[in-house]
Amino acid sequence: MRVSELVERSGVPLASIKYYLREGLLMPGESTGATQARYDERHLKRLRLIKALTDVVGLSVQKAREVIAVIDEPVADPFDNLGRAIAALPPYTDATGDAPRARAVLERLGQVCDPSYAGVAQLERALEAAEAAGMPMSDERLAVYGEHVRAIAEFDISGVPDDPAAAVEYSVIGTTLYEPVLLAMRRLAHHDAAYRRLRGAEPGSAEPSAG
Amino acid sequence: MRVSELVERSGVPLASIKYYLREGLLMPGESTGATQARYDERHLKRLRLIKALTDVVGLSVQKAREVIAVIDEPVADPFDNLGRAIAALPPYTDATGDAPRARAVLERLGQVCDPSYAGVAQLERALEAAEAAGMPMSDERLAVYGEHVRAIAEFDISGVPDDPAAAVEYSVIGTTLYEPVLLAMRRLAHHDAAYRRLRGAEPGSAEPSAG
Repeated sequence: MRVSELVERSGVPLASIKYYLREGLLMPGESTGATQARYDERHLKRLRLIKALTDVVGLSVQKAREVIAVIDEPVADPFDNLGRAIAALPPYTDATGDAPRARAVLERLGQVCDPSYAGVAQLERALEAAEAAGMPMSDERLAVYGEHVRAIAEFDISGVPDDPAAAVEYSVIGTTLYEPVLLAMRRLAHHDAAYRRLRGAEPGSAEPSAG
Repeated sequence: MRVSELVERSGVPLASIKYYLREGLLMPGESTGATQARYDERHLKRLRLIKALTDVVGLSVQKAREVIAVIDEPVADPFDNLGRAIAALPPYTDATGDAPRARAVLERLGQVCDPSYAGVAQLERALEAAEAAGMPMSDERLAVYGEHVRAIAEFDISGVPDDPAAAVEYSVIGTTLYEPVLLAMRRLAHHDAAYRRLRGAEPGSAEPSAG
């Protein structure tokens, strides 16, 4: 397809497409003349990914490029590719020091603890904040969360495609776009459980009158 | 204690304490003279809550006041108090219209669906975003997430204190400060599961050499 059709089908303005081409986020089309090029479904798919990363996840173009670089130039080890891609996602933390709370949790859960992985500092900060607010996570709560989060993660990882580029795309979208789904589902499950407990409704019973 | 001790023990500057008193977030101390008042543990606890809401959760003072108003002026129905408090928390959405995706998910999970509850619009937006990125949540994924999120939520709700003010505080802190813990734990569980799958390590085995 021509670039005009790419604009129409992707909903991305021409100026942005040119910018992504210049910055290397979008791969060049097949040249069909001095000022023309042909694009295909790969370009549409890539634009959809760029839109998700910048508009929905809120990444800067620079950070989106880091993710895309992993897709375009994967290293041999698929595990390292995932690590590189996830490291380009928020929340960012420059903490690389000791993470005693996170380490203790991971040890109890029997999970690998690699302090160079950004998630370790992320967990440490989150545990610290709950502590500072006077409501530290109890061991019992960590065990319950850990068990069920683990089951969700096993399901997620079982779906990682074998193709390295597809694996990175799956992991990045699955991390950033399913996180808000998970949080909304938790709030709604709270709503449901509180409704049943506080209003004394029967499980599986009807809807509240509100709405 | 005097206000000077309150400053010292809370770590909140005097100017902020005066501001919170003026704005009604912090309850007045017991007057002991024309320009003096005595403060106690309730004030320390309240300052810790205000700090968590503004510094960690990132609420504006106006939004923090909405949460605190529910604690200070609870209505008779504890379920309504929780709803009012949670509605003051981000993410904010002004959508109140139809939420067909969220409704379908909640129906399948057998949970109450009350469109006036902010979580419904939040779930709708999150499902929409995943769809737009070309990776909609499959029914199977929604069922797996739903089951385990439900178990986490049941645990959370079983701990709601009976005292109305304490219940609101528990719910607000538990919602906003445990969400980042949950997300970090999911990323770390991914890391662990991917490590085992892609590096072929044995479950429960040692740490990666990195770090």
